[in-house]
Formats: sequence, C-alpha cells, structure tokens
Amino acid sequence: MISYSRQLYHFAFDPHSRIARLGLGEKKLAFEDVPVKYWQPDDTILRMNPSGLLPILIETPTGDTGGKTRRLCESRAVLEHLEEAYPEIRLWPEDLNERGEARRLVGWFERKFDYEVNALLLHEKMEKRLMGGGAPDIAAMRAGRDALKDHLRYFESLLLHRNWLAGQVMSYADFACAAQLSILDYFDEINWSRYPSLKTWYMAIKSRPAFRPLLNDKLPGMAPSAHYQELDF
Amino acid sequence: MISYSRQLYHFAFDPHSRIARLGLGEKKLAFEDVPVKYWQPDDTILRMNPSGLLPILIETPTGDTGGKTRRLCESRAVLEHLEEAYPEIRLWPEDLNERGEARRLVGWFERKFDYEVNALLLHEKMEKRLMGGGAPDIAAMRAGRDALKDHLRYFESLLLHRNWLAGQVMSYADFACAAQLSILDYFDEINWSRYPSLKTWYMAIKSRPAFRPLLNDKLPGMAPSAHYQELDF
Repeated sequence: MISYSRQLYHFAFDPHSRIARLGLGEKKLAFEDVPVKYWQPDDTILRMNPSGLLPILIETPTGDTGGKTRRLCESRAVLEHLEEAYPEIRLWPEDLNERGEARRLVGWFERKFDYEVNALLLHEKMEKRLMGGGAPDIAAMRAGRDALKDHLRYFESLLLHRNWLAGQVMSYADFACAAQLSILDYFDEINWSRYPSLKTWYMAIKSRPAFRPLLNDKLPGMAPSAHYQELDF
Repeated sequence: MISYSRQLYHFAFDPHSRIARLGLGEKKLAFEDVPVKYWQPDDTILRMNPSGLLPILIETPTGDTGGKTRRLCESRAVLEHLEEAYPEIRLWPEDLNERGEARRLVGWFERKFDYEVNALLLHEKMEKRLMGGGAPDIAAMRAGRDALKDHLRYFESLLLHRNWLAGQVMSYADFACAAQLSILDYFDEINWSRYPSLKTWYMAIKSRPAFRPLLNDKLPGMAPSAHYQELDF
C-alpha cells in the first residue's frame, strides 16, 4: 500500500478551502497547512492551478512505496478524490437519492450562495479589507444580508424534517454549509436564535474534531464574534 | 435490473444543460427533452430544484421493475450520477491524476469561464435579448471577448500536448469545454483558424453522435453562424 504526505494550499477564510479541511479532517487524513493569500496568487500557485483558485491538495508518495504525486485543484475535485481514494469513511451518502441531494446542496453553495451572499457581504466585509479595496459599500452589504436571511430560512426549513442537510446521514453537504456559515459567524452575521433547527445542527457540526482547527483561525485585525469558538452558544 | 425513463429539464443554450445532454448521449441513455426558460423558472421547476438552475434530470422506474424516482439537479450532480449509475461507458478517466485534471477543468468552466466570459459576452449577446433586457453593452461585450481569447489560448496550449483536454482519454472535461464553445460558436464568437489544435479537437467532438442534437438547436430570431452545423469547417 502506497502512503502519501499531504499539503493543502488554502486560505483560512475561503469557504472552498474550509470544506476541504473538513473533508480531510473527517477522513482522518493528516495534512500540512500551507496558507495562501488567494487574492494575490504567486507563480507557485498558478503553476499548480492556472485558475489561481483554492484549495489545492498535493499528495506526495512517501519513502519507497511507489506511486505518483497527486494534485487536486479546487473543492469539487478534492472532495470526489477523497471519497474515491479513501472510501473507509464515506462522506457522500450511500443512498443514491440522498447522494444526489447532497451534491445538489454542495452546488447550491458554489453557484448560488457564493454569488448571492459572499460576493456582496463577504466581499465588502472581508475581501475589501484584505485587498485594500476601500470602505465597505453599505448598500451591497445590506443586499448580501437580505440574501443571507433567505438562505438561512431555507436551510432551517430543510432541517425541520431532516437530521442532516441532505437527509439521514452527515455528508459533504453539511460541510459545505458549515464552511460557509462558520465564516459568516466569525463576522457575527448570523442571528442563530431565529433558526433553532439550524442552530442545533451547527452545534453538532461544530463539536466534530475536524472542526476544531477552523475555530482557532484568526484574521489579523478582525476579532471573531464572541461566540465563534463556543461549542454551546 | 430496474429500468428507467428519463426526462431532462434544460435550456438548449445553457452550457450546463448542454454538458448533461452530451453525457447522456455518450452513455447512450435515451431521454425526453423538456425545454425550460431558465430566466423564468415556474413552480414545477422550483419544486424540483429550489435554486431554479438547470439542468434537472428525472429518472422514473418503468413498469414493475421497482426502484425509486431519482432527481438530479444541476450538471455536477448529473455527471457524477451518470458515472456511478452507468459505469459501462466511462467519462471520468480511469487514471486518478487524469481524473483529477478532468474535474479541475470542469470546475474551470463553472467557476471561471462562466464568470469571466459568459456573464459578459453571453449575457449581452443572448440573455438580454431573451429576457428583454435592452441593448447590449458594447464595453461589457468587449471585455467578455478579451477574456474569451485568453481562455481559447489556454485550451490551445493544453491541446498542443494532449489528445483530449484532460489528457489521454475523452472525458467530461471535453464535454464541458464543447458545451461552452459550441454556444459561443453559434454566435460566431470563435475565430477557429487562430487555434489549430483546438479546432482539430472541436472537429472530433462535433462528429460524435451525441453532439448532433446540439447542432440542430435553434434560437428564435437568431440564426447560427454559417459553420455552426458543419463538421468540416
């Protein structure tokens, strides 16, 4: 059996990076953190992933076990690879319909949430500061906050009738959601008391060992919300 | 063995719908076309996929063969499902590195090409007309065209050293690329003579039986480019 050492090129407050960290953590796969400022990708990053997007997972065979170096770019490729290469702990549901539902929800965050919420709220609140892009645009932030409420109500409606976001079992859909919401929670953008089922779900996710490293992330000059690290909030 | 009838809710000039049609076609899976105007999703669509995005694949068990109805929303869920449920014809490469590369490229079109090219060029040239959004913004179209050239040069550079976009074998990466480029080609936005390797590749893709239905697509009031349907162009 070939064994690998792993490096994850990521940014702590990039949701696509966070879902990869959660996937690796849940599958108990050790990896070395390589922090990257995604808004200024250097040549090393662009050689690995010409899009410059994160995360990038590199798996290097260790010792004389043979095998080739593996390079997985961006979260969808990382998640599917982890499931295929390390199937012992499954993070796509076994049930085919629930698996489809989980993939639908992972796509929801990539194609809808990112566009409707992050491109406004996270851009104004975090990215502009990181990139030196000037003062936040209040109207854009408000539009992002309104969109966020619609999304939170939708997740709450799903969790009224389900144990986990996609159905009966915990899956990548839960990590995709938690990756996103945890970043917004750092900035105190979620009024959890309005979404009791979502809050219960988030407490369960937050208490997973794989989640701990995320709770220790710090953004220089921007303190987390008072309850960000609290498992019981 | 359970057999299914299939319905694909899609829009002929939506690239995400086109990749699903190509995947189904290559796997020789018959399906009924259900055209949807994605810019005005009705309740039927929103009940199936609350994001309103296309495509949506419904597989219904036929006769008394048992099984449950399957619903797959959006292209990533459709493609992964087709590969898992119908593995006889493989559209992800067997080689793990090439498979990762194929998934990277499928993501390239979703997260980068869609944003840099389609949101500008296709939006101005097609969507505004469909949605009644007024005259095209010339500056936005030019920005989209400039971005398209960068993308085409990148695909050309890949195909200088590869048989197919992700490597040695034809894969979903090729269909993702062909789904996108074929729509832009309908609007005569690609000067193929500048990209000889890409042109050779496109001729090979275009001659696949699965591609034929796409070449017969028509957008009311907008004629295709002279060479859109030509296999030898």
